[in-house]
Amino acid sequence: MINRLVVIGVGLIGGSLALALKKAGACREVVGAGRNPLHLNKAVELGVIDRFETDIGRAVQGADMVVLAVPVGAMEASFAQLRGHLEPDAVFTDVGSTKGSVVEAARRVFTQVPAAFVPGHPIAGTEDSGVAAAVAGLFQQRRVVLTPLPETSAEALAKVREMWQRVGAEVVETGVAHHDEVLAATSHLPHLLAYTLVDTLARMDTSEEIFRYAASGFRDFTRIAGSSPQMWHDICLANRNAILDMIRRFTEDLEQLAVALRTEDSAEILGRFTRAKGARDRFKAGKP
Amino acid sequence: MINRLVVIGVGLIGGSLALALKKAGACREVVGAGRNPLHLNKAVELGVIDRFETDIGRAVQGADMVVLAVPVGAMEASFAQLRGHLEPDAVFTDVGSTKGSVVEAARRVFTQVPAAFVPGHPIAGTEDSGVAAAVAGLFQQRRVVLTPLPETSAEALAKVREMWQRVGAEVVETGVAHHDEVLAATSHLPHLLAYTLVDTLARMDTSEEIFRYAASGFRDFTRIAGSSPQMWHDICLANRNAILDMIRRFTEDLEQLAVALRTEDSAEILGRFTRAKGARDRFKAGKP
Repeated sequence: MINRLVVIGVGLIGGSLALALKKAGACREVVGAGRNPLHLNKAVELGVIDRFETDIGRAVQGADMVVLAVPVGAMEASFAQLRGHLEPDAVFTDVGSTKGSVVEAARRVFTQVPAAFVPGHPIAGTEDSGVAAAVAGLFQQRRVVLTPLPETSAEALAKVREMWQRVGAEVVETGVAHHDEVLAATSHLPHLLAYTLVDTLARMDTSEEIFRYAASGFRDFTRIAGSSPQMWHDICLANRNAILDMIRRFTEDLEQLAVALRTEDSAEILGRFTRAKGARDRFKAGKP
Repeated sequence: MINRLVVIGVGLIGGSLALALKKAGACREVVGAGRNPLHLNKAVELGVIDRFETDIGRAVQGADMVVLAVPVGAMEASFAQLRGHLEPDAVFTDVGSTKGSVVEAARRVFTQVPAAFVPGHPIAGTEDSGVAAAVAGLFQQRRVVLTPLPETSAEALAKVREMWQRVGAEVVETGVAHHDEVLAATSHLPHLLAYTLVDTLARMDTSEEIFRYAASGFRDFTRIAGSSPQMWHDICLANRNAILDMIRRFTEDLEQLAVALRTEDSAEILGRFTRAKGARDRFKAGKP
């Protein structure tokens, strides 16, 4: 049971976690922290948080669990603001989509990563952002990746693990660098491709008609292009080496497909599509 | 009212059209035509067609409406097989995703495109293929694009238009080349990107784990990679110039984004994502 949860950044993820923990009866009080009182007032009205503070140092007083749910580019500033204010037995974690950048930020602020800090990433979300989109069921049967470091205390890790399990998530552990490489492939690159496709099309002379002729395939393919630009800007910069590597791999493969098209290489085109369909069908069936 | 409908190629689209017309009471008899008797027998069992012929020339005898629903690469062979067998008052149309290649195939087979032929393309489908996936509601509120030529008879055009309206579709008309350019952007390129992404990921050493960490965004983004490889192989070759042009545009934009990442050009990254989100949000709201 969490006595006082502090959520720094009450958006889709932070808000959903607060709602889910309350609904599960796993948390007595939720304090929201952020810069915008209007926004935080709305979170109170929606019943997502009980009260709020705009000063992070004040917010974390008396808290046993602190969750940083700000865009990854804002993690370092949040660490700096809570430094020296956490209770001795408080545990803190984050929900950032990149883990290397968050761990580096923690190291810069605290000199070494605190034993009470557990880097984490719930693989859940929708293209909608903001507290109005928060729902208690967001983490049900979703994976949460924790990337504990050698300096992370076993007790802190256990508490964060339990928190996510209480809201229905499946918790897995992996290394920081490995997390960032895998997510670059499976999440960051697809977002960049979706953003780029929509932007490419929107800037064409016939864009109005293009979107008019778009069907359900296009709608699903580009859904993630509706995601928060600021959040994805931060992720891109935070994980740019792994992302650039994935862009390079993808572009090479797309160029090879273009060559196959140009040379009317039927076998090559059919081979690529068949391989991809096989992998996609296995993914769909849950047997990757 | 159609007296005898012949569907050449009883798959997802041809089968769904047959089901929908029957359900609407817009068709007395449906004859399926194709090469595979086992497959056609299944279509009879599913109630999609009333009977079948494996000889196209025999199938179209007595038909007032013939729909070619084979992959675009098989259109020319189908045209050749029905040539000389159509009733004098029969109308025929196709459902191919590319229109230039189908019109060229018709011209090669018939010397000039017959007045009774109306090139068409229902913008509907799912990633599933085959007659087992056919559903009567597939065309409800979907667009069907007809690309009549100067030689197309007004009567034939009206009959095909009415057929699609009877199954709930919204019929629009445009030029052949314009259709192919727009669809290259909105459908063909996204399919190629989805196939390529899944193939890129599947061939990485860590592919098993990559798919394990994939979330709903990835699932939706790659749904179309489950589409029929043969169908998409045919589309790629049939519309390769327009598709290659779109690949070039897209690759340039992706490369520019990579440069922005490499140089940590925040404004450029944020600008691109914001523009894309705006276009996607307008598309979602139905205001492109």
